[in-house]
Amino acid sequence: MATPTLRERRRAAATQEILDAAERQIAESGPAALSLRAVARDLGMTVQALYHYFPNRDALVTVLITRAYDDLADAVQAAVAVPPAQRAPGDADMPRLVIAAEGYRRWAIANPERFHLLYGTPLRGYAAPVDGPTTQATRRMSAVFERELFGDLTDGQLAAIEVPLLSPGFRAFLDGLPYYGSGRLPAPATALLMSAWGQLHGLVVLEVFGHTGFLGEHQAEVFRMSMLKLLEDVRGRTNTAQGR
Amino acid sequence: MATPTLRERRRAAATQEILDAAERQIAESGPAALSLRAVARDLGMTVQALYHYFPNRDALVTVLITRAYDDLADAVQAAVAVPPAQRAPGDADMPRLVIAAEGYRRWAIANPERFHLLYGTPLRGYAAPVDGPTTQATRRMSAVFERELFGDLTDGQLAAIEVPLLSPGFRAFLDGLPYYGSGRLPAPATALLMSAWGQLHGLVVLEVFGHTGFLGEHQAEVFRMSMLKLLEDVRGRTNTAQGR
Repeated sequence: MATPTLRERRRAAATQEILDAAERQIAESGPAALSLRAVARDLGMTVQALYHYFPNRDALVTVLITRAYDDLADAVQAAVAVPPAQRAPGDADMPRLVIAAEGYRRWAIANPERFHLLYGTPLRGYAAPVDGPTTQATRRMSAVFERELFGDLTDGQLAAIEVPLLSPGFRAFLDGLPYYGSGRLPAPATALLMSAWGQLHGLVVLEVFGHTGFLGEHQAEVFRMSMLKLLEDVRGRTNTAQGR
Repeated sequence: MATPTLRERRRAAATQEILDAAERQIAESGPAALSLRAVARDLGMTVQALYHYFPNRDALVTVLITRAYDDLADAVQAAVAVPPAQRAPGDADMPRLVIAAEGYRRWAIANPERFHLLYGTPLRGYAAPVDGPTTQATRRMSAVFERELFGDLTDGQLAAIEVPLLSPGFRAFLDGLPYYGSGRLPAPATALLMSAWGQLHGLVVLEVFGHTGFLGEHQAEVFRMSMLKLLEDVRGRTNTAQGR
């Protein structure tokens, strides 16, 4: 790869400054208040100069969301990469799925503003580009959880998983889903992955948005219990499959 | 009860107008943009006149949130009150917990702005009054789900429920929780209720905030499947209890 030119390095440095200023603004005033005008003011730039880097607020938002998803995926990945013996006290025996889920929860608690940007009230007027960088970034995270849920199952075990409900139409739809569809996971396993996402995300969003504050420090334990139950459920469906 | 005076009726009518204007403003510009100034402008009132009804934005927000929770609880309650034979086609055989959960989901989809107000990015600077009307309103909703999850179990069945993890400290904390604590539910059942709330809420918030749009109409089926799994799980823990 060619060494970046001075011009390219300057552009990268300026882009980074803009993104940092935007993240500061979100931290101070919330995602809904983000505007190019305010970012430009903060950096002592004109809005016209900012347009050379981001043509509009949505372009800036897309990069911010992508960076946040990537950072979240990195945190989840880093959590499962720690060898069990080097984990925090009491975590050595925890299944990797629980460790991954707790990585997600910890990132959300440590980065509430960026979690708001990803999963809070949708920004008015913003629509992520279809199949764009934010989609790619969420798939990276999804892949980690898919691996921890199903990675150690044989094709036969995966194929035998059943769920309480799966209409022929939904089954066909799941088989045809790009990325998730045929060749990766059988439809019931994909449905289970979606349901698991809801279970994982629900307690985290309730906690980070302040709805389970009455549980205090015990929120961590409710979450761990819920993730252990999730894994019990998936394993139960696999054991049934093994018994056939 | 005495007939309300003309003055009282006028005050009630004005309060209602203010609340309606605030809900319109949230629907148009999102919860983060809500301000007494804008509501007053919309109604052709001075902000000073508005202060006679709501001394500050937070007082208005508390009433809006309480109303939204009450409306959501009413919707859930109304859904389970429909006799099975009169439910929508395909719903007659659904357990009441699923019907209640689907009432929650339907309300959220039909009232996205109010759902954002309840469960989206927390409003900057707003803190609900401790144990105030919003707490009472969430308890009403919690009570419906508690009833549908555990209402038909005997005390013995309830007492025998086990969950994968429950430290002595957390058990004692749950036993001492006002409203949820001792005398109502044993600690493991309360922990299960919290976990169920996360599972229910997670998929709804992902759907309403646009994260599972790629599933299209099938989001309804993922949700129903997830709720059937939730009920299977709770019943499984009860059956184990019965076997003892």
